[in-house]
Amino acid sequence: MAEKIYRVNMKALATTTEDVPEKWNVLGGRGLTSNIVAREVKPTCHPLGKYNKLIFAPGLLAGTGCANSGRLSAGAKSPLTGTIKESNAGGTAAMCFAQLGIRALIIEGIPSKNTFYSLHIDKNGVTIAEDTELVGKWNYEVMDTVSRKYGNRIAILSIGPAGEMRMAAANISVMDPDGNIRSHGRGGLGAVMGSKKIKYITVDPTDGPGIYIADKEKFKKASVLFAKGIAGHPVSGEGLKQYGTAVLVNVLNEAGALPTRNFKEGRFAGKEKISGETLHDVIVSRKGSPSHVCHKGCIIKCSQVYNDKDGNYITSGFEYETIWSFGANCLIDDLDIIARADHIMDDVGIDTIDTGVAMGIAMEAGVIPFGDGAGVLRLLKEIGKGTPMGRILGSGAAMVGKTFGMTRVPVVKGQALSAYDPRSVKGMGITYATSTMGSDHTAGYCIPVNILNVGGFVDPLKKEGQVELSRRLQIGTALMDTTGLCLFVGFYGLDNQDAVRDMIPDMINAKCGLSITPDEWRALGRKILHTEHEFNLAAGFTNKDDRLPEFFEDEPIPPHNAVWDFTGEEIDSFWDF
Amino acid sequence: MAEKIYRVNMKALATTTEDVPEKWNVLGGRGLTSNIVAREVKPTCHPLGKYNKLIFAPGLLAGTGCANSGRLSAGAKSPLTGTIKESNAGGTAAMCFAQLGIRALIIEGIPSKNTFYSLHIDKNGVTIAEDTELVGKWNYEVMDTVSRKYGNRIAILSIGPAGEMRMAAANISVMDPDGNIRSHGRGGLGAVMGSKKIKYITVDPTDGPGIYIADKEKFKKASVLFAKGIAGHPVSGEGLKQYGTAVLVNVLNEAGALPTRNFKEGRFAGKEKISGETLHDVIVSRKGSPSHVCHKGCIIKCSQVYNDKDGNYITSGFEYETIWSFGANCLIDDLDIIARADHIMDDVGIDTIDTGVAMGIAMEAGVIPFGDGAGVLRLLKEIGKGTPMGRILGSGAAMVGKTFGMTRVPVVKGQALSAYDPRSVKGMGITYATSTMGSDHTAGYCIPVNILNVGGFVDPLKKEGQVELSRRLQIGTALMDTTGLCLFVGFYGLDNQDAVRDMIPDMINAKCGLSITPDEWRALGRKILHTEHEFNLAAGFTNKDDRLPEFFEDEPIPPHNAVWDFTGEEIDSFWDF
Repeated sequence: MAEKIYRVNMKALATTTEDVPEKWNVLGGRGLTSNIVAREVKPTCHPLGKYNKLIFAPGLLAGTGCANSGRLSAGAKSPLTGTIKESNAGGTAAMCFAQLGIRALIIEGIPSKNTFYSLHIDKNGVTIAEDTELVGKWNYEVMDTVSRKYGNRIAILSIGPAGEMRMAAANISVMDPDGNIRSHGRGGLGAVMGSKKIKYITVDPTDGPGIYIADKEKFKKASVLFAKGIAGHPVSGEGLKQYGTAVLVNVLNEAGALPTRNFKEGRFAGKEKISGETLHDVIVSRKGSPSHVCHKGCIIKCSQVYNDKDGNYITSGFEYETIWSFGANCLIDDLDIIARADHIMDDVGIDTIDTGVAMGIAMEAGVIPFGDGAGVLRLLKEIGKGTPMGRILGSGAAMVGKTFGMTRVPVVKGQALSAYDPRSVKGMGITYATSTMGSDHTAGYCIPVNILNVGGFVDPLKKEGQVELSRRLQIGTALMDTTGLCLFVGFYGLDNQDAVRDMIPDMINAKCGLSITPDEWRALGRKILHTEHEFNLAAGFTNKDDRLPEFFEDEPIPPHNAVWDFTGEEIDSFWDF
Repeated sequence: MAEKIYRVNMKALATTTEDVPEKWNVLGGRGLTSNIVAREVKPTCHPLGKYNKLIFAPGLLAGTGCANSGRLSAGAKSPLTGTIKESNAGGTAAMCFAQLGIRALIIEGIPSKNTFYSLHIDKNGVTIAEDTELVGKWNYEVMDTVSRKYGNRIAILSIGPAGEMRMAAANISVMDPDGNIRSHGRGGLGAVMGSKKIKYITVDPTDGPGIYIADKEKFKKASVLFAKGIAGHPVSGEGLKQYGTAVLVNVLNEAGALPTRNFKEGRFAGKEKISGETLHDVIVSRKGSPSHVCHKGCIIKCSQVYNDKDGNYITSGFEYETIWSFGANCLIDDLDIIARADHIMDDVGIDTIDTGVAMGIAMEAGVIPFGDGAGVLRLLKEIGKGTPMGRILGSGAAMVGKTFGMTRVPVVKGQALSAYDPRSVKGMGITYATSTMGSDHTAGYCIPVNILNVGGFVDPLKKEGQVELSRRLQIGTALMDTTGLCLFVGFYGLDNQDAVRDMIPDMINAKCGLSITPDEWRALGRKILHTEHEFNLAAGFTNKDDRLPEFFEDEPIPPHNAVWDFTGEEIDSFWDF
């Protein structure tokens, strides 16, 4: 079956359809977005200018019966970091793209007219329409209005006011199966969509060609094995389902690596009140949903629906990262406040990690006191309104640091660190420093091995083995992001490396009619990282950018009094592969 | 006579005195600040953190009878650009440092206590005092209060609220001989001073060792010749004296190179109202001073005192750059408004170039309309108050561009371009692109040769010869900034290269008891540039940073419809020396 690439030129307001080049036959998701960016985008271009492109690509396994294969990749040059960027999200869009036989959607150019547009994608192709009805509207209203108009079988991708205003931390929202919101959170891709003047995109899979699988028997066999493995693993089969990702609050606190008060300390006195266990109990008591999928085919179900005291919906997809960034990081020990913050950020369309870290810096700068939940909610609304303070916060943590002349600014390449202190979980520090995406825990998530004893153990407080660990995980993650698999299948993968080494190529071969070997597959992961790294070098990045802020070297973090003690040479050895 | 270096450690609140190393015997001003930064400051450090240092150094000829030798250099790693930075200013401080035998003042470290200090320098050394009386005060009040306290023989260096708040475009103010304000304007060195918690510095030359000149006869002979040359040149002897630097408004407008409406056009319809000729007439009619010195020994007198209609002082040192940045660039054709803007910026302590360009970008972003003079004055006051909008503007043009998601952001390495469009004065474009300081017209001022037919002629609209011209001027400027000579003696120098080639080394040899040859002197200029460039490379800059924003390549500028058409290779050839 001939899959295709759709190209939308917003300058010409015209679309074209292209065949998928033969050499891209094993590229999907991040593998495809990064290759297209590297081939077509001038590395030194302005991220919000006409030379940047925004690319969506479902993973190779999207739409199949493979468990947890529904992540959609979005790629571009990032306005937040200036690097290449891939940010993936759940929701229903990846499956809809796959059902239409679309391997990638490339959006290029900037309209001449100062107005907004929507894109409608169905079996007949892409329609570009001037569409100003929802301009200025926040994401929940957009999702609601559009899904009422088109019915609930379609997928929706949209930007909120943050994306319209081209704020550097703006995300792209994706509707989940229940009409709630998931996000391409990191790297400001919502600003790129805003620069291209696209308010929303609908993907209607009706009467599309559907999913072609070259060898259905072989595929089924491999995918059933894979699903059993995921379901049988204690983390992906139990822990995440029960407590969501917030299960990590207590774990990281215990490890002394829960960044608290803008990365001043490693433990949070209020952690009980924001833990995964507490979250679970609150959700259950309020008749929310403690275990929920972000896309069809998910068997991990780490998402959840969080209600208020009266049982009314506040938010969903309430992640550990968000609970940390506004909780421990801002000293807010109130899940209701953090849930409302999460709702506002989804509605405004802004990354919850960069915004939480931005808020912590603003608190250190004295804008509002640490722990001021009401102040946080007020400031988050200002982002949506585009007030000057909202603009500053919406531009991300690095910009807040610059605007207030602060030195304790936990970012790498302009992107905020996340919920794992690099001094006391050193593997994460290597990932933060070297990721081609700017600081990004998902790029090489060392927590299983550093903290959870999953897939072996590398002491989080020692330097030994961290570079190798991060490298191995970053290569593996580039592959996961290419298949469209959720990162969390990695828990099973790490504990069963020999089995999974064959299983994923088996599924890809069966799906695509290929005969890629596990070694070739692994080599592809290395190649994707190098392709991304070369783009960054051509954009002007150097090894000097692969460094953590100096305060991590100078300030020991309690309770272990750990410091960041890698030399530049040690960090640079990451790229020796 | 043993000259010395004073070192102030703000962490220890202690000072030390050091001999000047033998190898620095021909280093003063920028030559000295840049060498100290290169030797002592970690290139990748946070500019507002404890590893950065702030250095003041008078030029080699400061305090002597050499005309126009009173510029003071300030150096550090810049919070605006991240590069090495030297910014020099007139005022009385350079002479006072020289009279005390101080070759450089190095300020390092950050106080532990969250308070402000002042430094008092006299014949006995440096005294550090906790000093909070003037915290929050604006520069005019600081100058006034301090000079009333210490008498008017002392020099004062101070920061306004912008520097206290560590805004990236904050400047350092220097008192001029009449108690008004000159500025180390560019690169945010006021934020570095603010980070070191120093509100002001006084320099009392009373009973200092005075100026030692090794061979007075030889010095006098050379310096008299030099002064005659400057006084006899039509630009430095007449044009600048009569009209100030604003003489360039009509000249650049005629050349189609007066950036108008945030660099959209090359000519400004309102130029008559803001020209140097008009400025002169207004000043004379209001009994201001059309010709005024910024430091003792200046014979060019391009400065002036601008009064309001009632004859009351508004501002002084009212430069072409400021008149352009708020005039043509913001479409304000009212000198009174621009003068009031200049006054506020001096008072707040913020760079008038970066702030004017920032304002133009804010206007394009719709914050206020182009031409809104009242809006400009209101927003400038917000900088002083540190409102969110004030913080954004005070962070400079690049940050305004990022905060509002704009693509037409005329900066290089984070610093704003100035009053010469690089498309229609291409020599200036090469200087903007390659200067080690970020975009800086004074680093290699091609206007004499590109526009004024001084020192030869290189067609401003053609690429030929521009790289060589900028290189020659940047080397020469590094030397001028090392002597402490005003850039404007260069008009005479360019038209009399053979004479001046000997004259300056003659003065230095006579002053310092040296025997440096003209070739050795010229080699020193090249070496200073390379030292600065190597610092930047070690800080992570690459040739990708030596580029103009892409809109200069894409948008032809009327009336010549010129575009920026240098290739990267052509620009990079600048460094082939």
